[in-house]
Formats: sequence, C-alpha cells, structure tokens
Amino acid sequence: MSAVSTVVETYIAMWNEGDAERRRALVAQTFADDATYLDPHFSGDGPAGIDAMVAGVQEQFPGHRFELATEPDVHHDRVRFTWNLVSEESGAAVYVGTDFGTLAGDGRLRDVTGFLEPA
Amino acid sequence: MSAVSTVVETYIAMWNEGDAERRRALVAQTFADDATYLDPHFSGDGPAGIDAMVAGVQEQFPGHRFELATEPDVHHDRVRFTWNLVSEESGAAVYVGTDFGTLAGDGRLRDVTGFLEPA
Repeated sequence: MSAVSTVVETYIAMWNEGDAERRRALVAQTFADDATYLDPHFSGDGPAGIDAMVAGVQEQFPGHRFELATEPDVHHDRVRFTWNLVSEESGAAVYVGTDFGTLAGDGRLRDVTGFLEPA
Repeated sequence: MSAVSTVVETYIAMWNEGDAERRRALVAQTFADDATYLDPHFSGDGPAGIDAMVAGVQEQFPGHRFELATEPDVHHDRVRFTWNLVSEESGAAVYVGTDFGTLAGDGRLRDVTGFLEPA
C-alpha cells in the first residue's frame, strides 16, 4: 500500500475509533502538528482540536461507521477521496462526502477540507 | 449570481479567452496576487505564472473550450466545481475535471487544485 493510501486508511480508522486513547494515537499518526480540518458542519485545529471534533461526531452518529468509497486520487502533495457514513445495522449510507487534503513533508495530512455530496 | 459563482464563471472565461490582454484582465479578476494553481500536469504561481500556464494549455487544445459542469459547491472559504473540456466541433468532452479552491478575503481565488476524473 502506498504511503498516501496508508494515511487515508488511518484517517478513516481514526473516525471509527471509539477508544479515546487509541483515537488520539490515530489522530497523531494521521495529522501533522499544525493540521486543520474544515467541512460544512465541523472544524478542528491541531491534533487536539481534531480529536475533540471526531469525538463529537461519533456522539452524534452512534451505530454508524465511515468507509472509504474510492481509492485516494493523488498528485504532488494533494489528495482527494470519497467516503460513506454507513449504518452498521442496515449498511446504508446516510452521508457521502469527498475530502480534499494536502500532505505535509512527512506524509501526514496538513489540512483537510470536506464536502458533502448531494443526497 | 453569488460572488463565488461570479468568480468561478470568470475563471472559466479566463481559460477560454484567446486574446492575451483580455485574458490577463480575467486572470487579475479571478486570482489573488499571491495565488497558486496546481493540477496533475500544470502549475502556475501568481497571476503572471497562471496566465502563462493558461496560454500554454490553450496552445495544446485548439478548438476546445472549458464549460462549467456543476454549480460551485461552497462552504466557508472553500469551493469545488466540475468542468468539461469540450471539442467545439463535436461538443464531446475530452477531459472532465474537478477543481478545489480556497477564496481570499476579497473573494478572488487564492489557490486552486485540479484533479482529472477517470476517463
């Protein structure tokens, strides 16, 4: 698996990790120290801010998990990929989104902008 | 039309403007003074660099024009939209891409990352 695929897989695992300590470790693996995240509804600055944001999203969507819908599309230090937020009970996607990111020199994500696909 | 729609329409007009002077004026309307552009094949730094890049792309694709394929999707200072590069003779799209941008405080584009859709 490429370095970019690995960081994106880790990013998705971060969103799904319910254990606070393991989640913080995944955030640190995924995001550079000065990283930012911004989507239409949520934002987080730095690993601690992003961790708190992810914890809040998990509280809003119990019984759901994120799945990667596309392989990462990468050029230079830029990446995009699409994800589904699926119900663990029905398997149905309740949200579909596309994330655009830039990569830091060490291969971690420096910033991510999320967009939601039309329902 | 919203300010973001206007800047995106101007951006598309810039890609299609064959007159050097009018194109430079459209670049200046579209991009902030410190703007950058990066896609899988082309890049430009600052309005002069972006103008030179656009001129080069026009030379590579005579008889083609860019058309907006989707309305801009905007949140905060982020925007994305999809475009087609179409043959003026057949109307067929030879390339489809999605651009992701951030907006400067004055509403012009500060940076644009382009991705190509799979054929």
